[in-house]
Amino acid sequence: MPDPSTFEFDVATAITPRGDDTYDAEIHAGWDINGNANGGYLLALAVAAMRDASGRPDPVTVTAHYLAPGRPGPVVIDTDVVKRGRQLTTVTGTMRSGDRDALRLLGSFGDVAAMSGGFADVVGGPPDLPPIEQCVARDTSVGVVTVELMRRLGVHLRPEHTAFTRGEKSGRALIEGWFQFADHRPIDTLALMLVVDAFPPPVFNIEMPLGWVPTVEMTVHVRGLPAPGPLACRFHTEFIQNGFLQEDSEVWDSAGTLVAQSRQLALVPRG
Amino acid sequence: MPDPSTFEFDVATAITPRGDDTYDAEIHAGWDINGNANGGYLLALAVAAMRDASGRPDPVTVTAHYLAPGRPGPVVIDTDVVKRGRQLTTVTGTMRSGDRDALRLLGSFGDVAAMSGGFADVVGGPPDLPPIEQCVARDTSVGVVTVELMRRLGVHLRPEHTAFTRGEKSGRALIEGWFQFADHRPIDTLALMLVVDAFPPPVFNIEMPLGWVPTVEMTVHVRGLPAPGPLACRFHTEFIQNGFLQEDSEVWDSAGTLVAQSRQLALVPRG
Repeated sequence: MPDPSTFEFDVATAITPRGDDTYDAEIHAGWDINGNANGGYLLALAVAAMRDASGRPDPVTVTAHYLAPGRPGPVVIDTDVVKRGRQLTTVTGTMRSGDRDALRLLGSFGDVAAMSGGFADVVGGPPDLPPIEQCVARDTSVGVVTVELMRRLGVHLRPEHTAFTRGEKSGRALIEGWFQFADHRPIDTLALMLVVDAFPPPVFNIEMPLGWVPTVEMTVHVRGLPAPGPLACRFHTEFIQNGFLQEDSEVWDSAGTLVAQSRQLALVPRG
Repeated sequence: MPDPSTFEFDVATAITPRGDDTYDAEIHAGWDINGNANGGYLLALAVAAMRDASGRPDPVTVTAHYLAPGRPGPVVIDTDVVKRGRQLTTVTGTMRSGDRDALRLLGSFGDVAAMSGGFADVVGGPPDLPPIEQCVARDTSVGVVTVELMRRLGVHLRPEHTAFTRGEKSGRALIEGWFQFADHRPIDTLALMLVVDAFPPPVFNIEMPLGWVPTVEMTVHVRGLPAPGPLACRFHTEFIQNGFLQEDSEVWDSAGTLVAQSRQLALVPRG
């Protein structure tokens, strides 16, 4: 991999250890949607610190509860290694912004390359996406909302799933598309934390009051090391009721291997 | 609800507050599989303490990382309320058994009844199960393994999904069936923590090395208050690779409403 300091994602997820499992970091401008930092970016930033504390190369399963929006500026990430096991190291995390907790996290870290192989059985496969050049680049504006994040990313959506961008509805809470970085940074397991929250909410494609869909909780499972190339992603929602919705993703690499799954619980926008 | 002291689940999940957000409790014998306490029972016990600390009636989203097996005997559950919001209170938890952490948890609690209503859209529905009396009661022994837990529960499986109990394979990692308590305790949102880990691993129905499937992490979303009556449950696994498998559940009440979803990441048994 080239010098990480040249890639925007690495600059934006840089951490400075204080030496006591506490890290200084900064929420960088330009990774936001209308001023609020993207939840996947915040997750990646916190996980960068937790991963460092773990001494292992990869997040394997991480859960974040979102407590306050992230605004650009300095943050402190406190970590605590609670168990160092043979395969996994479990770490808690808190991202503090000013005197508020922005995120609370719990994760287990390991070495995904060392875990590879063994018994495998997979139901289903990656979405059968058209080539990137036939997909629709996600725009940096959706109506009055500015999605600054999209300048950093190359998110290209399956054309049939972009009805919402024209004020229409596909009728199904499903969005598929390609993910890569705008500066073509290679995608590692840290970047997967961003990928799983980088697409428009699939509920934009159904008749639901439009608005911000704030994440309450997100869990990501890293299931493989991404092979080089863009990722094929599927985001979908099945259950909207009692003020909450679930959103799942499956993320596949260019070799057709599942590399991440995520599920989040989010609040239904108030119409 | 009748006097809770008469139901086995309430006795087994009793907690005694020390007054400083720390709780004494006991892992009761009889909720185990070959001596190890069931992961759902441990989750319910820890969540009982976290719920009490939260001051809210229901777990809404809870994640547990399993660090050590739970053996019958006293445990201490430390909790910390990290945010009291308008709708949700976020709490961390640690279940200690002796000088070891058995579980680490992160959860948000609320009032599911107060959240009910609003925009709803659901894809799919409950499994179309045969009546309980035509289903197969889960046995207290599977080969040489004693599933003591099953004396407490009334888990009845769809007959086509019980191939594994005869040393056969259905070929699909799917198990559906009914859940109720053996003593017919009403099912509340705390009990859902147990329900989502009360069925045999669906991977028992595919050609995979048989053995213990230890949970690394489990996340449960409570999506509704269960109506009275047995629950219709679906457990399924789609992705087995690199030493890990995911297992999802959807749990539906007698009114046909989704009341819980869960996903766990577990280790593939070593053949």
